[in-house]
Amino acid sequence: MRAEILNIGTELLIGQVVNTNATYLARELAMRGIDLYFITTVGDNPERIQQALTLAWERADLVICTGGLGPTADDLTHEMVAQFVGEPMVLDPEVYRRVEEAFALKGRRLTESEKKLACFPRTAELIPNPAGTASGVLLIRENKRLMTFPGVPYELTQMWETWARPYLEALDGGTIRSRLLKFVGITEAEAAERVSDLEEGSNPTVAPYAGSGEVHLRVTAKAPSIAAAEDMLEPVIAEILNRLGEFYFGTEGDTLPAVVGQLLKSRNETLAVAESMTAGLLGSRITDIQGASDYFIGGSICYQVAEKARALGIPAEFIERHGHVSPEVTQAIAEAVRRLTGADWAVGVTGYAGAGPNTPDAEVGHAYVALAGADGTEIASFRFGEHPRERVKHFASQRALELMFKRLRRPAAH
Amino acid sequence: MRAEILNIGTELLIGQVVNTNATYLARELAMRGIDLYFITTVGDNPERIQQALTLAWERADLVICTGGLGPTADDLTHEMVAQFVGEPMVLDPEVYRRVEEAFALKGRRLTESEKKLACFPRTAELIPNPAGTASGVLLIRENKRLMTFPGVPYELTQMWETWARPYLEALDGGTIRSRLLKFVGITEAEAAERVSDLEEGSNPTVAPYAGSGEVHLRVTAKAPSIAAAEDMLEPVIAEILNRLGEFYFGTEGDTLPAVVGQLLKSRNETLAVAESMTAGLLGSRITDIQGASDYFIGGSICYQVAEKARALGIPAEFIERHGHVSPEVTQAIAEAVRRLTGADWAVGVTGYAGAGPNTPDAEVGHAYVALAGADGTEIASFRFGEHPRERVKHFASQRALELMFKRLRRPAAH
Repeated sequence: MRAEILNIGTELLIGQVVNTNATYLARELAMRGIDLYFITTVGDNPERIQQALTLAWERADLVICTGGLGPTADDLTHEMVAQFVGEPMVLDPEVYRRVEEAFALKGRRLTESEKKLACFPRTAELIPNPAGTASGVLLIRENKRLMTFPGVPYELTQMWETWARPYLEALDGGTIRSRLLKFVGITEAEAAERVSDLEEGSNPTVAPYAGSGEVHLRVTAKAPSIAAAEDMLEPVIAEILNRLGEFYFGTEGDTLPAVVGQLLKSRNETLAVAESMTAGLLGSRITDIQGASDYFIGGSICYQVAEKARALGIPAEFIERHGHVSPEVTQAIAEAVRRLTGADWAVGVTGYAGAGPNTPDAEVGHAYVALAGADGTEIASFRFGEHPRERVKHFASQRALELMFKRLRRPAAH
Repeated sequence: MRAEILNIGTELLIGQVVNTNATYLARELAMRGIDLYFITTVGDNPERIQQALTLAWERADLVICTGGLGPTADDLTHEMVAQFVGEPMVLDPEVYRRVEEAFALKGRRLTESEKKLACFPRTAELIPNPAGTASGVLLIRENKRLMTFPGVPYELTQMWETWARPYLEALDGGTIRSRLLKFVGITEAEAAERVSDLEEGSNPTVAPYAGSGEVHLRVTAKAPSIAAAEDMLEPVIAEILNRLGEFYFGTEGDTLPAVVGQLLKSRNETLAVAESMTAGLLGSRITDIQGASDYFIGGSICYQVAEKARALGIPAEFIERHGHVSPEVTQAIAEAVRRLTGADWAVGVTGYAGAGPNTPDAEVGHAYVALAGADGTEIASFRFGEHPRERVKHFASQRALELMFKRLRRPAAH
């Protein structure tokens, strides 16, 4: 099968939005072994959308459109698709009712223009949107397929995962199976070097991706059956884990906060945080995991020096002496929050997220992370370099989770 | 002038790299008033690169290619361009010498294939690369232009800024100016309806975009001069603000945390947080802004009931009586953290981020936000519906910021 992606939306042509949808879909297609030769971005213009649809339909068996499914005047995709296949737009009463209900829940009524959320090309099959009010469509003509998805990345990925993945799997004769292996505590270059011979194979393939402070390897096998593909994956995965096992933390769907949470749960232990530089980001990431309230107590956002003193009892002169970004203060806030909350583990973070009047240039991106437990406190220092503040904070929270992961994986002390 | 972007590189078609180059170039073109109708991504395949070049050259006066300028076998762009315009590739001795020197500095010698870094279509003008060894080219034919840039984003932007910007400015007659207006507290549909007559204009244009809990309108004017374009923007912006002014919070580059921060700074007031459901997300967003330490004290991540009691002194039986997600508890944690930290303002957040064993289904996505100040405490209740936990938390933090924005915009009480 040969696919083509058509991203529709003027916001992409004026550079207002980065086209992460194309990247997501490209990766999904690559994983399924579906060839992708062209990605085209076009604005909210009827003539040019028709032109792009015509070309994509000529070149590909599967045309994936994103964007232009909303309720405003410049959302044209379904009208354009209907025109392209020569069908009228028809209101779907069932969708209309659901959209009406969704609006009613927010205390709103549908305006005239919003009714188009329930109008589709006549013979289209609907693609349900579990995350929003704009449905997509599937149209089939002479063994060619056209699909539409919203431009909102979260809605697109939800629809893709719940609908398109199983749909494409059912279509596909042979099968493709892939496994994602996630690692922390090793650089992409180092990981790639250790498995460079495996990366040369063509089936299974081994491909590295660098995440934000993580390294991901995807192993993919094509075979006539699921069982055969799994059999091909197994020895390659075993070999990778043999070489990189100490850095391995999980697979598809596993996140470092989730894995750390599982470790805490299985050890029946609790966690608290004292966040200066990250100012709550670590707590927020930990609680992105359902059930975090079982092990996450909470803690202190001790951003200003005064708050380190008030909430955690660290004497201002101690902070003055060592510097508010220092191994000593980081250890002190971690140990204080552990003692005060009674948590089994506590993490402290201090650092310089970005430039500022009181920050030496060379210190921007420098952070300390401390992990306090019953058997003492570990402190690590990191230099991330100059990045946007959000990135530096993310890196620091990532390193804190990494420290917890490494420590909690070791058997409990008692 | 009409431009078209052609991004060349298989890494883009397998989803390994996000195409930020397209976004950067699109923004640069929009700012200069150069129309961009299509962006095409194609892999490192000679036939398909020719096909894409042909189409882009037909449709546009300015074709901007990125990628494929490196020294490896799959870097084909200059060969393809030479073939397209029917010219031989010629080695440039001056560039060759510089590339050789650059390699020598790293203790390396040029391999045979790396010599292509110094080979260009015969009549091409070179575009210097101040950040790397791969030069780009400019080719002109019958008032049409083709430019090539490397795929490495940093090298592309350096070349664009030092060479392409002045080049295009010298070429250009007219100009384009646009302004982004950001609103909170109103839905996209409602905002669109209130300005629907303005959206019908073709110069200036008014186009809506929905962000995460925000509505953005972009107003764009084309004119022969900057002053004329600004004159055209002014009355349209005034009319929009006349209709939507109460929801307006900022323009390009303004974020709600930054605007709230500016308000706090100008009022010389401080802020603390007590975050249960958001567990630090609000504090983290507030500190994404440089200089936040001037007004943000910190506060409590009071995730578990025990932590609300310990850190904030809220009696467990009070929480038991009202429920840990309730207006009473939200008010209590906000007022407690305000009193304890001495902040002028304090925000409390409680809610159900996602499904859980102790969460009634109908309550998922339900949150309370309280804003405590010298003149009392405001409490708001929100139902976001079922979304991923991160989204619900983001919405809640957004509503907390919205509450602060609305309140802080009013004159100080004293």
